Amino acid sequence: MKIGLLGCGTVGGALVALLDQEGDRLARLLGEPLEIGRILVRDPEKERVAPISKDLLTTQLSDVIDDGEIGLVVELLGPGDFALGAIRAALGAKKSVVTANKEILSTHFLELELAAEAASRDIFFEAAVAGGIPLIRALRVSLFGERLSRIVGIVNGTTNYILTKMQEEHISLDTALAEAQQLGYAEADPSGDLSGRDAASKLAIIASIAFGSHVDVEDVNVDGIWGITPSDFDFAERSGGVIKLLAQAERDIDDPDAPIRVEVFPAIVMSTHPLASVRGSFNAVFVEGSAVGQLMFSGPGAGGLPTASAVLADIIDAIKNLRTSTRASMSMVTDTRFVEDSSIDAVFALSVDVADAPGVLSQVSEVFGHHLVSIARMEQDELDGELAHLVFLTHRTRLSAIKATMAELADLDVIERSHKLLRVLE
Amino acid sequence: MKIGLLGCGTVGGALVALLDQEGDRLARLLGEPLEIGRILVRDPEKERVAPISKDLLTTQLSDVIDDGEIGLVVELLGPGDFALGAIRAALGAKKSVVTANKEILSTHFLELELAAEAASRDIFFEAAVAGGIPLIRALRVSLFGERLSRIVGIVNGTTNYILTKMQEEHISLDTALAEAQQLGYAEADPSGDLSGRDAASKLAIIASIAFGSHVDVEDVNVDGIWGITPSDFDFAERSGGVIKLLAQAERDIDDPDAPIRVEVFPAIVMSTHPLASVRGSFNAVFVEGSAVGQLMFSGPGAGGLPTASAVLADIIDAIKNLRTSTRASMSMVTDTRFVEDSSIDAVFALSVDVADAPGVLSQVSEVFGHHLVSIARMEQDELDGELAHLVFLTHRTRLSAIKATMAELADLDVIERSHKLLRVLE
Repeated sequence: MKIGLLGCGTVGGALVALLDQEGDRLARLLGEPLEIGRILVRDPEKERVAPISKDLLTTQLSDVIDDGEIGLVVELLGPGDFALGAIRAALGAKKSVVTANKEILSTHFLELELAAEAASRDIFFEAAVAGGIPLIRALRVSLFGERLSRIVGIVNGTTNYILTKMQEEHISLDTALAEAQQLGYAEADPSGDLSGRDAASKLAIIASIAFGSHVDVEDVNVDGIWGITPSDFDFAERSGGVIKLLAQAERDIDDPDAPIRVEVFPAIVMSTHPLASVRGSFNAVFVEGSAVGQLMFSGPGAGGLPTASAVLADIIDAIKNLRTSTRASMSMVTDTRFVEDSSIDAVFALSVDVADAPGVLSQVSEVFGHHLVSIARMEQDELDGELAHLVFLTHRTRLSAIKATMAELADLDVIERSHKLLRVLE
Repeated sequence: MKIGLLGCGTVGGALVALLDQEGDRLARLLGEPLEIGRILVRDPEKERVAPISKDLLTTQLSDVIDDGEIGLVVELLGPGDFALGAIRAALGAKKSVVTANKEILSTHFLELELAAEAASRDIFFEAAVAGGIPLIRALRVSLFGERLSRIVGIVNGTTNYILTKMQEEHISLDTALAEAQQLGYAEADPSGDLSGRDAASKLAIIASIAFGSHVDVEDVNVDGIWGITPSDFDFAERSGGVIKLLAQAERDIDDPDAPIRVEVFPAIVMSTHPLASVRGSFNAVFVEGSAVGQLMFSGPGAGGLPTASAVLADIIDAIKNLRTSTRASMSMVTDTRFVEDSSIDAVFALSVDVADAPGVLSQVSEVFGHHLVSIARMEQDELDGELAHLVFLTHRTRLSAIKATMAELADLDVIERSHKLLRVLE
């Protein structure tokens, strides 16, 4: 039985190289070689680093789907309808599928799980979330029996790289982003990462498995890192923390009908928290369960080789199942309710630049009062002769109340500028 | 199909309670209930916290082994030949086995794997190592295709609790141990933990899976935490680190015939290293692979409920395999060579109390010179009028050379006391 590979970019190329390098050893371990039968590419003439025979290349999806020797399709095409169609076609032809496609899974999770079930085949996607960290299999298998209450983590390496740079070198987001792009840690169009959308896709997949419910990326409340400034980092540091982009899924485990809450947001993470020390493009995920307590998984969140390693683990697992005619089953419930913005409560840090004049603080405080937002701490720094920088840390309060507060503040004449709203990880 | 439970102590009791509490939900997820058919106990009359029907209890192993309805035996008896015999009998009767028995696995790993293979059944042991952390399954499945070069971690919660107390409260080992015993973190006879033997058992199991070779606990070079003093912590702190008991397995991945090196030792871990911040009874394990890079897993290393959670994961996995008549296979090589003490090289921290007299330093230095041990750094503190405390940090050197150095130093008249030899985690 052979493998059909769809796409041969960074991860696909690393996979081919890995299979080439580890082939003999894996054949010994598995009792048969892992052989690639066909590779779908856009341009067969392109120069490739990985050792690939030209005979394997094709530009026709049907060459892979219709090949009876191919029992397993590895989809590494990236976002888009073509990839979705390819996965559907592979499952339709009763081939198991391994994919790293977070965009597709975060929108079509339930459909594809059901298609795999109908075909009696596997769909595996360890590489779609948190790169080389074996998180998906831990959730699917090791923690299958747990009632999970919370998953919170850093799942986007690009933004974590940028935030780490901003923190350590006191530079602006634009400067850090340019550096990340130069080093290949950020794409030319970084909006998917910086907006939090990439993290939201991964969170949707994590939450779907962790809670056995289909969570779509559109269900996630998303706020990204656009607008974060060095002065936000100064404030975070004075508060004893650093700024991280967090993805969090929560559920009340004592109430089986409780809604799920899925959010991506920038937060001040206190230095004593293990997530505060996750630097650069690394990922880390906390998992909290009713019996097991708190677990943490961390490792490389991206990169061709770590991601290819996760794909390889899925390939081996899928092939073992194909050999014994079994499959890994999911148990999905579909009637999930999501928490509205208005009911999310948390501790917030909020900062504004104001005219440095008598009575300003009282005007600003009055606005908080209107919305019943209670202030835990306030700090004032003079910016220059005419402006002052005010920072407020709230008690636990509703997101809707904070948003209403910020909207009313924006209308005050004395407010020169509102900074990014940050949550605080307790 | 029912479960036969052998032993109903802390973990067994927690498992019964967990199955009772989660029973309905698990039955829905699995499509059938997880039912305990029989429980082997020493004393059926004993009061138990878990909700157990007296009808299930027996004092006869044969009542479990000969029960045709029981397809899976969960062994939680603790160390000893009786437990070993019970596992053999269960596999012999073609029942799958889930065990938390690190003592037995660290001495009979290969025999039991082969017995499981011969019976076409599984033997699972997630709970034998690192409590609730799903490390074993990650190594067996997710990292199956990786060439692993190194595993290093904190795998004994008792010693980590004691070392954390010594570090944070500047107390002696005896005081910290007494406190740990009072709180139930250490047993009345703590020698298995403090000698490093418990960590060595877990390391033997980890290394056996990670390297696909049978590693026996007797193969592990073990040094425990006996003899560690508050002044060792002072020195560690001045060096920018803390003292941890580490378990480490290493292999040269570029040489398939390279020996494996397995060791347990107290070390100075620099504060910047993630293992330095693992506090109390928590466990954490680093895994380094050729493709995936560095991963870390951390979580509760002990406790009834987290350990029962790991047992439950194994039960679910084993039952799924029994239903589909498959099993999880291991690929074992048996011809492993181990590194002798003499060839282990590392950076060492070594401290001695000496008579505070002229010429002492030169005498001591001369001994290092004899054994070609190169000193990277030396510090001298006055202890009182007559004694001085010398601390040496070596360059990378052989363990045999350091041991010879310490032996010769002990014979010097000017040496009043040698402290614990510590390695430094680079």
